[in-house]
Amino acid sequence: MRIALVILAAGKGTRMNSDLPKVLHPIGQVPMLAHAMQSGGAVSPERTVIVAGHGADQVARAVEEIDETAQVVLQEEQLGTAHAVDQARAALEGFDGDVVVLYGDTPFIRPETLERMLAARAQHDLVILGFDAADPARYGRLVMQGDQLERIVEYKDASDEERALSFCNSGIMTGDARALFDLISRVGNDNASGEYYLTDVVELARDSGLSVTAIACDEEETLGINSRADLAAAEAVFQNRARAELLETGITMTAPDTVHLAFDTVIGRDALIEPNVVFGPGVTVESGATIRAFSHLEGCHVSRGAVVGPYARLRPGAELAEDCHVGNFVEIKNATIAEGAKVNHLSYIGDASIGAGSNIGAGTITCNYDGVMKHHTEIGKRVFIGSNTMLVAPVTVGDGAMTASGSVITRNVESEALAIARAKQENKPGHARKLFDLLKAKAAKRAMEAK
Amino acid sequence: MRIALVILAAGKGTRMNSDLPKVLHPIGQVPMLAHAMQSGGAVSPERTVIVAGHGADQVARAVEEIDETAQVVLQEEQLGTAHAVDQARAALEGFDGDVVVLYGDTPFIRPETLERMLAARAQHDLVILGFDAADPARYGRLVMQGDQLERIVEYKDASDEERALSFCNSGIMTGDARALFDLISRVGNDNASGEYYLTDVVELARDSGLSVTAIACDEEETLGINSRADLAAAEAVFQNRARAELLETGITMTAPDTVHLAFDTVIGRDALIEPNVVFGPGVTVESGATIRAFSHLEGCHVSRGAVVGPYARLRPGAELAEDCHVGNFVEIKNATIAEGAKVNHLSYIGDASIGAGSNIGAGTITCNYDGVMKHHTEIGKRVFIGSNTMLVAPVTVGDGAMTASGSVITRNVESEALAIARAKQENKPGHARKLFDLLKAKAAKRAMEAK
Amino acid sequence: MRIALVILAAGKGTRMNSDLPKVLHPIGQVPMLAHAMQSGGAVSPERTVIVAGHGADQVARAVEEIDETAQVVLQEEQLGTAHAVDQARAALEGFDGDVVVLYGDTPFIRPETLERMLAARAQHDLVILGFDAADPARYGRLVMQGDQLERIVEYKDASDEERALSFCNSGIMTGDARALFDLISRVGNDNASGEYYLTDVVELARDSGLSVTAIACDEEETLGINSRADLAAAEAVFQNRARAELLETGITMTAPDTVHLAFDTVIGRDALIEPNVVFGPGVTVESGATIRAFSHLEGCHVSRGAVVGPYARLRPGAELAEDCHVGNFVEIKNATIAEGAKVNHLSYIGDASIGAGSNIGAGTITCNYDGVMKHHTEIGKRVFIGSNTMLVAPVTVGDGAMTASGSVITRNVESEALAIARAKQENKPGHARKLFDLLKAKAAKRAMEAK
Repeated sequence: MRIALVILAAGKGTRMNSDLPKVLHPIGQVPMLAHAMQSGGAVSPERTVIVAGHGADQVARAVEEIDETAQVVLQEEQLGTAHAVDQARAALEGFDGDVVVLYGDTPFIRPETLERMLAARAQHDLVILGFDAADPARYGRLVMQGDQLERIVEYKDASDEERALSFCNSGIMTGDARALFDLISRVGNDNASGEYYLTDVVELARDSGLSVTAIACDEEETLGINSRADLAAAEAVFQNRARAELLETGITMTAPDTVHLAFDTVIGRDALIEPNVVFGPGVTVESGATIRAFSHLEGCHVSRGAVVGPYARLRPGAELAEDCHVGNFVEIKNATIAEGAKVNHLSYIGDASIGAGSNIGAGTITCNYDGVMKHHTEIGKRVFIGSNTMLVAPVTVGDGAMTASGSVITRNVESEALAIARAKQENKPGHARKLFDLLKAKAAKRAMEAK
Repeated sequence: MRIALVILAAGKGTRMNSDLPKVLHPIGQVPMLAHAMQSGGAVSPERTVIVAGHGADQVARAVEEIDETAQVVLQEEQLGTAHAVDQARAALEGFDGDVVVLYGDTPFIRPETLERMLAARAQHDLVILGFDAADPARYGRLVMQGDQLERIVEYKDASDEERALSFCNSGIMTGDARALFDLISRVGNDNASGEYYLTDVVELARDSGLSVTAIACDEEETLGINSRADLAAAEAVFQNRARAELLETGITMTAPDTVHLAFDTVIGRDALIEPNVVFGPGVTVESGATIRAFSHLEGCHVSRGAVVGPYARLRPGAELAEDCHVGNFVEIKNATIAEGAKVNHLSYIGDASIGAGSNIGAGTITCNYDGVMKHHTEIGKRVFIGSNTMLVAPVTVGDGAMTASGSVITRNVESEALAIARAKQENKPGHARKLFDLLKAKAAKRAMEAK
Repeated sequence: MRIALVILAAGKGTRMNSDLPKVLHPIGQVPMLAHAMQSGGAVSPERTVIVAGHGADQVARAVEEIDETAQVVLQEEQLGTAHAVDQARAALEGFDGDVVVLYGDTPFIRPETLERMLAARAQHDLVILGFDAADPARYGRLVMQGDQLERIVEYKDASDEERALSFCNSGIMTGDARALFDLISRVGNDNASGEYYLTDVVELARDSGLSVTAIACDEEETLGINSRADLAAAEAVFQNRARAELLETGITMTAPDTVHLAFDTVIGRDALIEPNVVFGPGVTVESGATIRAFSHLEGCHVSRGAVVGPYARLRPGAELAEDCHVGNFVEIKNATIAEGAKVNHLSYIGDASIGAGSNIGAGTITCNYDGVMKHHTEIGKRVFIGSNTMLVAPVTVGDGAMTASGSVITRNVESEALAIARAKQENKPGHARKLFDLLKAKAAKRAMEAK
């Protein structure tokens, strides 16, 4: 079956109270629109049309990043959902197949649900997606007669009997492209708000003798986002789904509720994730790695047996090989840490590569930025970098070399050499006492003067 | 209407199991008493009288900090709630208006509720606040007859019919000052515990032919705190209210449940608060700022477009101008960071000002304390502070200047100068290898000797 | 009464999807098996026999750490629970008393429950532990006749009437050792899965005219762990119990849900635990200490009045005396911090002792590792360690001494001396400007070449 997606993404989202178009607010660290596009993508659409309106330029840029084959069309005025879908008419000119209408602010439709809708198309001309609402009050009701959807009735127009129905309209539908656009062109706006409602196609279809049905999905799938509270609730739904999936694959999370995942987080079997870990986009953690508490990972790779944290920050481009250790208050950015290497304390390693078995002392900093450009630091294998070594890039330290603690390394260090840059220690007997006395006298004087 | 608040705050709170008087335990980082005072403050009282008992000195000091116009009176012995209110009699001598009786351990009464109570005073002499209890078992029941409160019946004295009532007594009431104190002087202590109960004024009022009513509020408002578990539950109520209010104003919190707010946290529209952020008192965050995960803010200001964290700690007096960046493992205290300046990694900036566009390298420390006094560090505009620079205050670095990484700066640096304090690097070929061999031999010897 | 525990710990736990034997997965930072052993330990067993199977070697090693008096026997093939208990027969040869059968993956049985089971033994030969299931669907039902347990019926074999029962089988039982092993030897495996079921002893006992009863416990106690999601749920049960107990003893936790405790965490009255604190094993915190947000403690002791964090990491062997302060981004390992000493910022203190009243400046590092061995640093009383001091161990700094900021201290410093190791500062006028110009020119050239 040939399928085209039309995703409505033009709304302002007034209740979001935001300058950012609603559909670009993130869930699991990607715009909610990306979730809707991903749901739809699961049915292998031949074409995807995004109907943008408010913030259309921003939306178009975001769409390009998500799926550059998707086409963005503009709904200049927001005149209702039927009008919105109608904006995709030109883009789908000549398309021969089914159109699935989705919403950019309804991110959780499961692929299986869309597949069931498409399967129902074998028997029906138009398929509407409904759900059994726990609290149906504000939703439009789906009035069924056998497997036929008789009509969609808005709450305000519903009889008591209809109001007692809990089968509600999600707004999502599918039908043959030509038939659907034909119906849409017959939708009017003779109603209180003067809008063209997509739901009206149901009645028009019935009147034309078409067969219309509705199938049900879980209410959670139809969660729509209209406020920041809804957004937070949607994020929670996403996180709970993602956590449950990871647990299922054999990962231990001590406190899953405190682990924040991104849409693309990959974690291998028997990895251990301690409490309070945040995953940004682009992280893979291999089997048997340990991510300790209070760690923050983005765009990085952690190999088997590696131990990260607590309080480790891995930024984009951090590549940790097997069995290496990155400890507390350590930031790694755009750097490879080879097998068994250790960066255990209070360090910044950026734009660097560290060889296998090397030990980077506490307080080490790769001085990668000279105020204008970034430069690379190359540390060999089995190197011992003394505490508080400054590695002024570009600089290379050879295999088996050592730097003395507190040294500023500006020149390359050859293999097995010791580099030292350090002033001689002087001990001045009694000087500390004198200095304290002096400082106390000064402080007393200052206090006196302040009176 | 002239109003006086009487807030009962004398109880020991035995079940708190604490040396701190119960009403001083904090919610949202201020004593719970402050919440009760704030609730009451919303009806613009002319006078506020706090009845203290256990830990009265500590309570009095706390009250002075919260509202120095409030008067603290002492209830030397805790002889019951009527006796407690009676301690305010002298302080309100000659006061002509309404008294509202609140409780220091009941922090969540909404201003609207008090307004409704005061409005009800137009028709009634005494107004009691009740609530519909989900589980009324242990509460006193309010027995209504039309809009008249017939009596308050304690659970143990209640008939089956009365026990079936779910409308319960919160203890909060309002009435004319003279009438109320007159009733109170007629309350006796002829009961099992020998205490003077404020609830007895209801029966006395009825007997005197006064009109007594009760109005209802949400049960959550009447949440009283008697244990640490209650305190934690109250903190959760406070946090959920505060989070919901912020979401409503257009803030994104990825995981609101992990954001801990203070009573006075102010955050602007379209700010982004990532998971696991703790706000202490006195924080304002402007619109469009981003507070990344694991950040901790107290007494500070973050301007529009600034990015803070992850793992940033802003302490009192930190003032971040627009678009500046404070990154991981950075502590800022009593310091201004001007527009666009960056302090990205592993730094301590205290008692300092940093000019616009300056870049503070990783590991920079303002050495503000000489063991006796604190001193100031002044960094100009467009300065480049090299990694691991120690700025020994008092010291000034002029506009456009630079410090070499690893330098200890003890003297002022003029504009556009480069300051360097660094030993020359020596590379000793083969020395690392020899040193490792030596250390290994020593370790082997030590191990041998240990046998 | 003489008691022997038999704890079944042989299962693979296929649904855990793990290389680690199921019973070794941790709850509260010890293997779940340790919780079962601890539950059983509360009834003072004379002998404890652990029946291991999958990963028996690992299990045996773990058991030895938990209780070296416990005996581990091997169930080579997993042929059912009766077969498993039968493996303990030889180990209990000649034991004259009661056997209590527990499960290594059922960690939450309360001691009181076992005591009630043993008390019921006075009237009955065999005592089974049951529970009232909120959702009994998949459990075996306990069919009672007065105080006699008539039989245990599996769900699939149950009549509608039996299915309506909610009293379910936990598998836990106790009986006289000889009688139980006698019954077990009569259990057959003539069933669909060909396994020997321990539950079959009930029918055999009834047939032999023995008295069999069942007593009830809370369903939560019988929580069994079969998947990572179960494990996370069990961890949550453990944490909630542990938090509630601490609150009861008079500790304030601002947000108890964000505090992660270990099985042996001890915290004194009126201590304050802020949000997001993780306790590893072996931590004691005295009364009135404060653990601030984002702290991580393992194997350490914090004395009265000490303040730890935010972002402090105390590792094994950290001993904090009264009123000392350990601040942000500080790691303490195997070190004593004496009364009133302060380590406030960005430091690593390992293998060290710090005297009373000393002040350790920001960025201080004890360079305890020379690449081969660890060495000790000794700091006296009232010492002032300047910021970014490297203390190259072994090294001693005497009482009242001082180090200049940025110094690398390799030789001992006598009392009241000032140690300094610092290059002289040079200011090169105009040099920063020239350098910036040069770097910008280079960058421009590089950009040009890149085209």
